[in-house]
Amino acid sequence: MRAYLAGPEVFLPNAREILDCKIALTRSYGFTPVSPGDLSVPETETRRQRGLAISALNEKLMSSADLIIANLTPFRGISADVGTVFELGFFVGQGKPAFAYSHEASDLLTRFRRSPEAVYDTDSRAWRDALGMSVEDFGNADNLMIDACLAEQGRIFHRLAVPPEERFRAMDGFIACLKEAQSTFAAQGCDPAPAA
Amino acid sequence: MRAYLAGPEVFLPNAREILDCKIALTRSYGFTPVSPGDLSVPETETRRQRGLAISALNEKLMSSADLIIANLTPFRGISADVGTVFELGFFVGQGKPAFAYSHEASDLLTRFRRSPEAVYDTDSRAWRDALGMSVEDFGNADNLMIDACLAEQGRIFHRLAVPPEERFRAMDGFIACLKEAQSTFAAQGCDPAPAA
Repeated sequence: MRAYLAGPEVFLPNAREILDCKIALTRSYGFTPVSPGDLSVPETETRRQRGLAISALNEKLMSSADLIIANLTPFRGISADVGTVFELGFFVGQGKPAFAYSHEASDLLTRFRRSPEAVYDTDSRAWRDALGMSVEDFGNADNLMIDACLAEQGRIFHRLAVPPEERFRAMDGFIACLKEAQSTFAAQGCDPAPAA
Repeated sequence: MRAYLAGPEVFLPNAREILDCKIALTRSYGFTPVSPGDLSVPETETRRQRGLAISALNEKLMSSADLIIANLTPFRGISADVGTVFELGFFVGQGKPAFAYSHEASDLLTRFRRSPEAVYDTDSRAWRDALGMSVEDFGNADNLMIDACLAEQGRIFHRLAVPPEERFRAMDGFIACLKEAQSTFAAQGCDPAPAA
């Protein structure tokens, strides 16, 4: 079974090293890794064309994969990286299994309340931002569409605290997802790597 | 044709008013609006169950829709609302037409460079955040997966500046998408509302 490795670690200076670590771990759990860096990007004339070429490769890799393992650690704010969330939606839209983790244990509202713009509106009994927009209070790790798509599939959203400087480098959550995927497919009578 | 109306305006205090405006506009362009507030949420015992119930309704509405019109205006940071982005990925994964707008004209990198943590790394010739993570420089409005999924479908990502306090209330981008959707389907010989 082919596992697509989604996450913002592609933006790290040592992205290759982190992806290679994920690739090796994925193989060790019997899955075939499918990673954004697997195909080389063709030469393009403009920056915009390069962006389109990378996306076309990623969509091709996603369509070739059987499942996604998504790193949904909050990225430059209280929510996950939008690129990773797009990919999660893409898999769920196709009815494919999704596994996910965050290296932050707190819930969305707790993180929001730490921001200077958070105000509690006693009239509506909701926490609101500077524009008056409310924040969900469901105890979720992130937006309800994200938490719920995992719950609907019977998955655990693995929320594991790691030291802040390790949040995009640690492998704790990724390994938790690999273990969950392995036991999920074993319970269904599937061998992740039948041809291996 | 049924158009799913995705966007973070559901978090506004006057969400109902904004959604009703979008619903009326959608009908005026010949589409049948499908909006997150269309179905009432069943009673639940816990907050978590309520979150799951809302998501289940939204997924049901999404699956019943033929296209999505997504409000991708930056939300509490430099990128779009993750709930809306999840829904965009869901539609694109199902091969359905997607239309989108942002009420911010600048590109992702320009917005990032305004943040205090932005540093230019001369070695890698990239803008990086406090964790050393790079920011895409493709001239895109947001993450490349978002811009590119629209470009692949031949769409315009409508980037229209509005006054800051109007960014989640203005209808400029939404109307631009409705016009684009109308001409797209007319060109394909489809009447958006054949039964009307």
